[in-house]
Amino acid sequence: MADQYATSREDNRPTEIPALRWDEPPEGPVLVLLDQTRLPAEEVELVCTDAAALVEAIRTLAVRGAPLLGVAGAYGVALAAARGFGVDEAAAALASARPTAVNLAYGVRRAQAAHRAVLVAGGDHKQAAEAALAAARALHREDAEASARMAVNGLALLDELLPGGNHRILTHCNTGALVSAGEGTAFAVALAAHRAGRLRRLWVDETRPLLQGARLTAYEAARNAMAYTLLTDNAAGSLFSAGEVDAVLIGADRIAADGSVANKVGSYPLAVLARYHHVPFIVVAPLTTVDPDTPNGASIEVEQRAGHEVTEITAPQVSVAGFEAGGGIPVAPLGTQAYNPAFDVTPPELVTAIVTEEGVVSPVTAEALAELCDRSRQITI
Amino acid sequence: MADQYATSREDNRPTEIPALRWDEPPEGPVLVLLDQTRLPAEEVELVCTDAAALVEAIRTLAVRGAPLLGVAGAYGVALAAARGFGVDEAAAALASARPTAVNLAYGVRRAQAAHRAVLVAGGDHKQAAEAALAAARALHREDAEASARMAVNGLALLDELLPGGNHRILTHCNTGALVSAGEGTAFAVALAAHRAGRLRRLWVDETRPLLQGARLTAYEAARNAMAYTLLTDNAAGSLFSAGEVDAVLIGADRIAADGSVANKVGSYPLAVLARYHHVPFIVVAPLTTVDPDTPNGASIEVEQRAGHEVTEITAPQVSVAGFEAGGGIPVAPLGTQAYNPAFDVTPPELVTAIVTEEGVVSPVTAEALAELCDRSRQITI
Repeated sequence: MADQYATSREDNRPTEIPALRWDEPPEGPVLVLLDQTRLPAEEVELVCTDAAALVEAIRTLAVRGAPLLGVAGAYGVALAAARGFGVDEAAAALASARPTAVNLAYGVRRAQAAHRAVLVAGGDHKQAAEAALAAARALHREDAEASARMAVNGLALLDELLPGGNHRILTHCNTGALVSAGEGTAFAVALAAHRAGRLRRLWVDETRPLLQGARLTAYEAARNAMAYTLLTDNAAGSLFSAGEVDAVLIGADRIAADGSVANKVGSYPLAVLARYHHVPFIVVAPLTTVDPDTPNGASIEVEQRAGHEVTEITAPQVSVAGFEAGGGIPVAPLGTQAYNPAFDVTPPELVTAIVTEEGVVSPVTAEALAELCDRSRQITI
Repeated sequence: MADQYATSREDNRPTEIPALRWDEPPEGPVLVLLDQTRLPAEEVELVCTDAAALVEAIRTLAVRGAPLLGVAGAYGVALAAARGFGVDEAAAALASARPTAVNLAYGVRRAQAAHRAVLVAGGDHKQAAEAALAAARALHREDAEASARMAVNGLALLDELLPGGNHRILTHCNTGALVSAGEGTAFAVALAAHRAGRLRRLWVDETRPLLQGARLTAYEAARNAMAYTLLTDNAAGSLFSAGEVDAVLIGADRIAADGSVANKVGSYPLAVLARYHHVPFIVVAPLTTVDPDTPNGASIEVEQRAGHEVTEITAPQVSVAGFEAGGGIPVAPLGTQAYNPAFDVTPPELVTAIVTEEGVVSPVTAEALAELCDRSRQITI
């Protein structure tokens, strides 16, 4: 039931711990996560033996990132099925663990549907559990493939928009191997540019309040020996102003039917800055991030997180005696109220292009997006 | 020589410790600062017995804020004179302690000129020291008066731009009683609106990397019982997008002759967001912040600070064993390079108005600014 810490490596050498893996030790199947709250200080694996533990890991952001949440959600359903817990209850809890990332609900639904289809067809619980696991594994594989294809499509777009290579790319939050079964979304494009010798610099926004840029993107950039520089989110404006940014590349947590993009808070100000400075603002996301049931930006539910993420600083390697609330170090006066949306919404008119595994939408319109989704469905069916 | 901590109050009750005061205990004259690096956790006074200690306090931001730096610089010269140290050496060290805030050099020059004038006229060192102190005291008094007049002028402008009161003001960094002999610059306007019953909400940007918004502005807002909400700098975009910001009010560290405004990093992105959303962007600063010798934004020297302010989190109440560099808690991988400009520059076309103690410049042009400065000089001579 409870989470266990499987391994802890503190020797600072790069390891190849995947963000997520299914394992079947003698005690029964488990989902093993790389605990992203402890990076970059420690590489620690978190072992989930049931869906409740996974829900907790999703809420605390031990596992995060839109595509990976989809894969995690599917494995969570498979885990509940394999362990003999109620699959529908697990699916409901998983799907609502975080409201904005549409991929999570998609992954959960897909494994749940596979499970149900076997039961409806007269199969037993063991066969249904196997079907759920097969669905999760399929999504896992597809996600890795999608990541590779987004990298190819994204780099081709960059080269088209910015001939001559030598790209200086600004990114926000974390969109690499830690959010995906492959090498990620926006980060995968920057990594492809790096491997092709066409990345001059990756500008990494630290991404307050939870510092995913400083903790995770810098960690991934360092492991891949990319030329990167960290900055406060505030300093991005100075880079634009100095002409040091050739393109902004970000991921997405949900893309509405009209092309509005929900992504980590701080993305929208970058879109406005990019527009003001005539710099391309490019969103990289798999088609599973597009939600045709969300008509526009106004209908995207934005997760509001606890104020203590802003009023306190949390660092995993430090335990602070004498403080409570979120368990961090208070930086604001006691009783300070905070506004802490996890995401913001960028309207389609500020998005230069949406790069998916099936192609690029540019300019971003509801029609172009619907056409790409339809085409993809024809291909995959 | 060394700094001493005079008092420490941890009872959390509001006190009236001024940001800066001159004192003359039997041991000799001292400049006593409220150590702003320890706020809001502790109210601690830092006693400077010579200019070198004050230079260190300025560099570490124990004392900060453009107007207050001017007053501190003047008292620093007076301190060197009163203690019998070399006044010109002290003045040179003080004036160059931080390059962007023009007020610091102004305050230093003014006390130094008063000191020199007495010597040139045949006065002795004691008389010259008294003249330097009188110049510092005059600047101190003028700064408090300027603050009160900026508040009146700023509130009148707000009421003109936004009839009906109920203002929702977004501010960045700290511009209150901690940066001034009075109640500050931008914050003083918000406080005047609060006292007049016309402030609906003060939105407080936390202001990374050093969190002056979270630590200092929230502290001042709480002490004044204002309705305030803290946010990450990233979340300001969401507020604009939701129509929750009626005006942006910030201070300035240097205003060039063309009206370009250097202020805390993160101000420029707010100016771009304000323009995109048709929200007034108002700069509040005393005329001593206007530097006619700096022709435009490109000629403003922007202070670049150490990368560890970004790669590490520092919290005064926590001592971290086992870490070095800046002495904070590392949040990025070891060896991460950071871009850390302390300020950015907003061009005049993005500034709705500059509010000074002598009046308001709007639209912001070199001619209008020069005219205000000339008029003020005629009045004060």
